[in-house]
Amino acid sequence: MRVAFYYEVLLSLSLHGTDSIDPCLANSYNIRMFPRETYVKRRASFIRALNERGISRGTFILLANGASPRNYPSNCYPFRQDSSWLYLVGTGLPDCGYSLDIESGRSCLYADEPSLDDIIWTGAPPSLHELAQRVGVEGPSSLSELHSLVAEKLARKEPLFILPPCRGEQQARLAQLFGIGASAHAEALGEFIDPRVILAFVSVREVKDADEIAEIERAVTATKAIHEELLHSLEPGWTEKAAADYVLSRASAMGLELSFATIATCRGAVLHNSPTGYAATAGDTFLLDAGLEMPSGYAGDLTTTFPVGPRFGTQAKAIYEVLLHAFGAATAALAPGVRFIDVHRRACLAIAEGLMSLGLMRGDPHEAVEAGAHALFFPHGLGHQIGLDVHDMEGLGEDYVGYGDELRRSDQFGLHSLRLAKTLKPGMVHSVEPGIYFIPQLFQKWRAERICHDFLNYDIIDAWMSVGGMRIEEDWCITEHGARRLGPAFDKTVEALESARTAQ
Amino acid sequence: MRVAFYYEVLLSLSLHGTDSIDPCLANSYNIRMFPRETYVKRRASFIRALNERGISRGTFILLANGASPRNYPSNCYPFRQDSSWLYLVGTGLPDCGYSLDIESGRSCLYADEPSLDDIIWTGAPPSLHELAQRVGVEGPSSLSELHSLVAEKLARKEPLFILPPCRGEQQARLAQLFGIGASAHAEALGEFIDPRVILAFVSVREVKDADEIAEIERAVTATKAIHEELLHSLEPGWTEKAAADYVLSRASAMGLELSFATIATCRGAVLHNSPTGYAATAGDTFLLDAGLEMPSGYAGDLTTTFPVGPRFGTQAKAIYEVLLHAFGAATAALAPGVRFIDVHRRACLAIAEGLMSLGLMRGDPHEAVEAGAHALFFPHGLGHQIGLDVHDMEGLGEDYVGYGDELRRSDQFGLHSLRLAKTLKPGMVHSVEPGIYFIPQLFQKWRAERICHDFLNYDIIDAWMSVGGMRIEEDWCITEHGARRLGPAFDKTVEALESARTAQ
Repeated sequence: MRVAFYYEVLLSLSLHGTDSIDPCLANSYNIRMFPRETYVKRRASFIRALNERGISRGTFILLANGASPRNYPSNCYPFRQDSSWLYLVGTGLPDCGYSLDIESGRSCLYADEPSLDDIIWTGAPPSLHELAQRVGVEGPSSLSELHSLVAEKLARKEPLFILPPCRGEQQARLAQLFGIGASAHAEALGEFIDPRVILAFVSVREVKDADEIAEIERAVTATKAIHEELLHSLEPGWTEKAAADYVLSRASAMGLELSFATIATCRGAVLHNSPTGYAATAGDTFLLDAGLEMPSGYAGDLTTTFPVGPRFGTQAKAIYEVLLHAFGAATAALAPGVRFIDVHRRACLAIAEGLMSLGLMRGDPHEAVEAGAHALFFPHGLGHQIGLDVHDMEGLGEDYVGYGDELRRSDQFGLHSLRLAKTLKPGMVHSVEPGIYFIPQLFQKWRAERICHDFLNYDIIDAWMSVGGMRIEEDWCITEHGARRLGPAFDKTVEALESARTAQ
Repeated sequence: MRVAFYYEVLLSLSLHGTDSIDPCLANSYNIRMFPRETYVKRRASFIRALNERGISRGTFILLANGASPRNYPSNCYPFRQDSSWLYLVGTGLPDCGYSLDIESGRSCLYADEPSLDDIIWTGAPPSLHELAQRVGVEGPSSLSELHSLVAEKLARKEPLFILPPCRGEQQARLAQLFGIGASAHAEALGEFIDPRVILAFVSVREVKDADEIAEIERAVTATKAIHEELLHSLEPGWTEKAAADYVLSRASAMGLELSFATIATCRGAVLHNSPTGYAATAGDTFLLDAGLEMPSGYAGDLTTTFPVGPRFGTQAKAIYEVLLHAFGAATAALAPGVRFIDVHRRACLAIAEGLMSLGLMRGDPHEAVEAGAHALFFPHGLGHQIGLDVHDMEGLGEDYVGYGDELRRSDQFGLHSLRLAKTLKPGMVHSVEPGIYFIPQLFQKWRAERICHDFLNYDIIDAWMSVGGMRIEEDWCITEHGARRLGPAFDKTVEALESARTAQ
């Protein structure tokens, strides 16, 4: 899991010396890391101290922290790097490994290069090679090389040393690395995990009663208040992190916790972009995806996209209107007995139609959606259930919650990311969140491989790439005869947003 | 670990119906839980849904979440109860267990009664029996009874069911409960954990260089700013949780994270009291123990005690002055080559002397401290190292960090809680935090058992119990020839505090 903590990368970048910092990879608050020499010196001191205690050979192994789940694996607490790692290695990136050969003093960083999927969801990370250089270690090598190194040392009975792990996840990762069978628990416990029990529990939890819906509505109402506050308060010059901190600060002042880590970004095309030190300019479009949680645990989840300046740019406005139309088409289709996958398809169709009218797509819109061409712009699903978890019950297994006995998840790019597909029932609460994104790495790959070429005008799309990414999200409840939006109305027309930004 | 989340207990208390809520056990922000019948109905629906899927007998087992470590086991993320637990059981207390007999529908809550130590550190929890009744389950039985139940079902090969665990800690606890040997990893990994490596690492990390000290000082300076803001802003009527939320809100506005969960309380005698819904009155004394963390990971940690009204009460003022004197005596004794345990003893002596002058203690102060009589009032240690962790390196093992090769931890009540004892060296950074507390449960026990009766005037102490608890904390750095306070000066005399409160 690489859940959006690239702003933690700031820890790897120095304000000492002359290193230049990409503001998209750093926050703007007192970022500083020590110079390379500090880490080199610390490692040398550690080796001396080991020698004094009679340890002059062997390999010292350290793992960076990974994410720490709050209510399910992709809803994590704010990332905190391991302190021993910060001291000795110095980088802020999660899920890395480190080895120190005590005799030679050679240090190596281990980390896996991000996949295209990682880049789409959390953005391109910094160069791992530069990171390693920055803190004076060799590498990066892949994590599988660290596994090989440990296996080899174990086989040769050469000494290996670690520090005591603190988190449960960390202990399991170390156990796996040391061949102790980290999956043993999971496998043995698996005997007691019966899919029928999960499906039974989901069938009960997914139908919310009036008290639950009222509680979710309170969370949505509080969430909406904070979205409106940011819509009126954000000024050019604010960094993304300042906007996210503003949201947390306002939530705390209300006595509420966040239901998930805030996405506050000028780079909406990175789906789960973590707030960076990039300072918003009047030409940018801002995307806020943030939610609050009631003390009872019930969550709200909204996304608002608005111009940083008084007006959307011409292209951004045109795309936003396509998106708003798709959003309206989707919410109009909500009703009990309807499959959510069909509501998702309705939104995809509206996006394809709109982009065809702008010349970015071509051909028959139904055929384009069938072929998955729209997923170049809308690579994720239309929504997810909401309740005691912001992605309700996701910790029990996404397919149990969103597909059940009824449907199987598609393998098609885009549709594969749809979390909720099954038939809607009265009492179900879920998000509706279409988006339109221009993702450079995805565009380059599709264009090079001529994917869905019959439906995509690549040359025209190329001229629209600066639009970035947009998403609109509300929380809806299925009723006996239709559906209703939770929380107070929030006018998201271009006119209303521009007028809010002008009044600022 | 029972780390201060009793305000989470709010989840177990209803605003429906006529249940009365002790504000000390609930926060004041939209606390609500559903009526007992809601949980009873949910469990019945779950059993019906299981029956429909062919499961009509067996036992369903659920564990409440425990704490989720942030940087070491006692520095945890804000507690979040497991969502399945919230749905089906409904209580907010951590570390409990639950069983549901699918055939009979009988539900039971399992939890251990708190120890005196738990009560001293985190306060008396609500009645577990009332909690169980409140959500319509039997119990509480002890957790060892849950272990016996599972062992018995396993032995009889009767069906047991769980839901998939999400957190690493949870998986390990389940594995232990199901006899899968949760400690297997820890034991096997133990082979690679060499005390010499830990001691070597500690010896390097504990001497901070100038860059590190500057970074810690920035954290202390930011921390001090927030303490002063609260000192000037808090008004009678604010709840403890509102004060804690204020701190988080101000920290977020500064772009910084908290270095640990804030203690903001009118009940300072609960050492790690978690903020509750209790509203401060002009007669209360307020204790704020809160710190910020720089983006680099370095921490600050301060405690300020001040009157909620314009003046301390007469008794509170007298005790505060004893405390301030003890604080001064301790900081004056800081120097390289001095053992911190002796600085701790210096503070204990000053407290004993001061309480003797007020008539609460009697006899020879040195003998009283030797006997541990002062620990009735000052049951914790004088300080801990500070660095990348607010209790620096505690995750590696407290004794390695605070005692090393040099000393062994005492078994005496009070002294046993001293985290840092060993000889101070230039570059070490640590807190100085004496406290004086009147803890009802501890007082009752000591008085009944006539503990240190020669040094304690129990009848007089009884008349001072309403003073509650106070602590003063600063962060200090050991220099070549002495020591210096980190961060700007903060006048903590009675006059300065009362004048700040009057100017409010």
